Amino acid sequence: MNDSDRVKTVAELAAHVGGRAVGDAGAHVGGVASIEDAGRGDVVFVEDEKFLDAARACGASCVIAPEGAGAKLEGAQSVIETARPKLAFALVAEVLCPPRRRGAFIHPTASVAPSAKVGEGVYVGACVTVSEGAEVGGGTQILAGAFVGERATVGRECVLHPNVVLYEGVTLGDRVILHAGVVVGADGFGYVRDEAGVYHKFPQVGTVVIEDDVEIGANACVDRAALGTTRVGRGTKIDNLVQVGHNVEIGERVVIAAQTGVSGSTVIESDAVIGGQVGFGDHARVLSGAVIGSQAGVLPGKIVRPGVWWGTPVQPLEEYKRRNASWGRLPRMREEIEELKRQVKELTARLDEKGE
Amino acid sequence: MNDSDRVKTVAELAAHVGGRAVGDAGAHVGGVASIEDAGRGDVVFVEDEKFLDAARACGASCVIAPEGAGAKLEGAQSVIETARPKLAFALVAEVLCPPRRRGAFIHPTASVAPSAKVGEGVYVGACVTVSEGAEVGGGTQILAGAFVGERATVGRECVLHPNVVLYEGVTLGDRVILHAGVVVGADGFGYVRDEAGVYHKFPQVGTVVIEDDVEIGANACVDRAALGTTRVGRGTKIDNLVQVGHNVEIGERVVIAAQTGVSGSTVIESDAVIGGQVGFGDHARVLSGAVIGSQAGVLPGKIVRPGVWWGTPVQPLEEYKRRNASWGRLPRMREEIEELKRQVKELTARLDEKGE
Amino acid sequence: MNDSDRVKTVAELAAHVGGRAVGDAGAHVGGVASIEDAGRGDVVFVEDEKFLDAARACGASCVIAPEGAGAKLEGAQSVIETARPKLAFALVAEVLCPPRRRGAFIHPTASVAPSAKVGEGVYVGACVTVSEGAEVGGGTQILAGAFVGERATVGRECVLHPNVVLYEGVTLGDRVILHAGVVVGADGFGYVRDEAGVYHKFPQVGTVVIEDDVEIGANACVDRAALGTTRVGRGTKIDNLVQVGHNVEIGERVVIAAQTGVSGSTVIESDAVIGGQVGFGDHARVLSGAVIGSQAGVLPGKIVRPGVWWGTPVQPLEEYKRRNASWGRLPRMREEIEELKRQVKELTARLDEKGE
Repeated sequence: MNDSDRVKTVAELAAHVGGRAVGDAGAHVGGVASIEDAGRGDVVFVEDEKFLDAARACGASCVIAPEGAGAKLEGAQSVIETARPKLAFALVAEVLCPPRRRGAFIHPTASVAPSAKVGEGVYVGACVTVSEGAEVGGGTQILAGAFVGERATVGRECVLHPNVVLYEGVTLGDRVILHAGVVVGADGFGYVRDEAGVYHKFPQVGTVVIEDDVEIGANACVDRAALGTTRVGRGTKIDNLVQVGHNVEIGERVVIAAQTGVSGSTVIESDAVIGGQVGFGDHARVLSGAVIGSQAGVLPGKIVRPGVWWGTPVQPLEEYKRRNASWGRLPRMREEIEELKRQVKELTARLDEKGE
Repeated sequence: MNDSDRVKTVAELAAHVGGRAVGDAGAHVGGVASIEDAGRGDVVFVEDEKFLDAARACGASCVIAPEGAGAKLEGAQSVIETARPKLAFALVAEVLCPPRRRGAFIHPTASVAPSAKVGEGVYVGACVTVSEGAEVGGGTQILAGAFVGERATVGRECVLHPNVVLYEGVTLGDRVILHAGVVVGADGFGYVRDEAGVYHKFPQVGTVVIEDDVEIGANACVDRAALGTTRVGRGTKIDNLVQVGHNVEIGERVVIAAQTGVSGSTVIESDAVIGGQVGFGDHARVLSGAVIGSQAGVLPGKIVRPGVWWGTPVQPLEEYKRRNASWGRLPRMREEIEELKRQVKELTARLDEKGE
Repeated sequence: MNDSDRVKTVAELAAHVGGRAVGDAGAHVGGVASIEDAGRGDVVFVEDEKFLDAARACGASCVIAPEGAGAKLEGAQSVIETARPKLAFALVAEVLCPPRRRGAFIHPTASVAPSAKVGEGVYVGACVTVSEGAEVGGGTQILAGAFVGERATVGRECVLHPNVVLYEGVTLGDRVILHAGVVVGADGFGYVRDEAGVYHKFPQVGTVVIEDDVEIGANACVDRAALGTTRVGRGTKIDNLVQVGHNVEIGERVVIAAQTGVSGSTVIESDAVIGGQVGFGDHARVLSGAVIGSQAGVLPGKIVRPGVWWGTPVQPLEEYKRRNASWGRLPRMREEIEELKRQVKELTARLDEKGE
């Protein structure tokens, strides 16, 4: 059970998620849990009817379940019936377990430059740096050790977890969450070789814009553009240890799983879904509606159309499966070819014999 | 040569590793080295007899060598014979080159919350944060810039290297070593999409437990569970830049090399060995005794049985090798098929001719 | 337009890059830009003649273009003709947009140990630690939260971005740039298992040497040697999130793209070019002149000769292409084999019939 002011009735939560309360609608709940760990006051959810028995047996006070499942659950627990239990569970958790909100505060060990503009209700933790000319919007929380570079702009109600680094001049929208160790705006990776073989840095003097409601996982990196802007669109979610190269443009509501790398100038359009450990060559383009499986490799300049894609080089999943099935039969195919060669030789011999 | 109080005699070290001293057992040694760099007072080891000549020629005062090798080495150096020279060398290094031990200290720039409980002999470096309700066990060293979140628990004699981040409520056992930039307890990567296409965060309100004697490499990430616990078992060793997703369970004495990624709810049982850059889909299970080669890809839900596995999708190494050999012969197989088609056509023509 | 003291004439820049000024050689320029974003006072470049029209139409004051292109551009803009426009553009950017230079300063929250030697004109940012016995060369900038371990040596005019961590005893040459979150000198990943299955740390007591003019991207890791030295040669450029294992030796002017991992004791000779997400097994050797494509996998002990290499296990690009083309035809090959089997069976039947 959480804070008493976050305790809600089942009826209130059912209304919040647009579901139907079944059983004791006045029961009080204050937390979310898995079926394994649930206790009194907790809400659990069941997406698949095969887990209804487990849900009935668990200690939760309320089960969010598919429409029509309420009757099968009735008994000790209250039920919220809804077409999409998992979504309703997420919405309930937003109410019962909101993220920690730290109030207005500037830690004595923090360094906030005189020319920085810090909004109302901003939390600045220990050893944070907010550099000259930076702007931080109201309600934002900057946790210990984070660094906001010169002229960087952070929107309202963002959370910068410990040791996040924003290089100079980058821009974050509102409600952006950057997990610990994220680096935004480091130089892109570009060099030009001279006749003596020495690499000269191609100018990396562009910037980064991260739009509203983006969340980026721990130790991920988003490089500044060489010239122009590296952009991550509104509502996009990026997992830990992802690399986003210079001049990449990621659309809105894109999902990118852990350890994927996106090379320079590649475009990932809105609503694409990208697995983990995927590698993108430069100047590729992923069209809206494409889904790319984990560990896939996208060649430079490749256009990935809507549909499900897989493998290296990336190909439609169905094609990949067909080839992969053949691949599994390769040793057998070799045997079959050897057998055919033997048979053809024998046939030839028999024909030759007859011909004599 | 190191501190004089760490100087030992060859006899003492032979006893410590259960080996047999050959030659001058009273010789003093104080450090470990490679054969290339060794000087007076150093111990080196030889695992393979083919390096015995090099060992004899090097400047070390003591050679740890396979049983029976002492006679071949006798001369200027002392020898410790043992069945497992490399293991003995590691055990000797634990004595001669123990990790640095910083004594009780709290740096004036550190922030230790009033409600935090800090044990005896704890070292708290510059700009460290120990948050409200956190507990730190005796003899633990927390180096500069590290962050211990609210109600996080750190066991005894741990080392948190600079800029490590522990989110709120996570638990470390005793003698855990986290290298610089490790992040433990960041939110898992889980979202539910609503009808408008907006992603809502699936609650990430579970925790992380890292058991005794675990070591985790620089900039690696272990996410908190959505609900429940992400667990890393006792004695497990994880390399740099590894990603461990929410609700993952890793058993005891597991080894995971650099840049591997483990997706949500996957289980890796005790004593598994995982190479680098391996990718695990969610809800996979690696059974105890499995060894998975670098860059392998394990599909969601896959069960990996004991044995050596390779490739994407992961398969027994022997099968992979057979297929891979065939793959190398693919262009040749295509030629053979063309040749067979030609021959069959010719045979058919000859038969047709005869039939006339 | 940038600082007025960085404004140059087209003639001055043409002389600097060894090019030929065409048109108004006295025009003033102060910045670099892409053709899309360029305004008055900016320099742009055109490498490929097909972009000449766009360059003529853009707002830039000066276009760097291939030899002979000046006539096609003449009009409002000044032109610098040169054999290598992109290189010239990089050289111009070095003049017009030099990296930020912070002057001599020690932030009051920084901790500089009494025995540390800090050169002239060194910038030490907020919450930086410079430990006992460390040395920092003149003109170096150490930004907020960075950590310089005991007896570590940093050369002249280096830049350590925020939260960089140098473990004890490592050495950086001059003009080394380490981006945010880089970790140099963490323990290598090496253990020896005893009879009880417990892993003992193989000693990781060597060091790291990073030579002059190396640049390493955000959150990348370079481990210390077990015994001896991990080395990154002069002028080498390493991208974000790369892992360099213990005892690795990287030569001069090597380029390694993001998320690549190099296992212990592997050697990458000078002037090699390595793509992103490549994996190297231990004790491999990449010869000077080799180019390895992204996501390739190099087996332990493999020697990679000069030329272009691709795939897992790594193979010459031409071979890979041939095999990959065959792979695409695999389902067709299976059909052809089935057809051949049918035909051979039929031929055999016809011959048998005749033989009767």
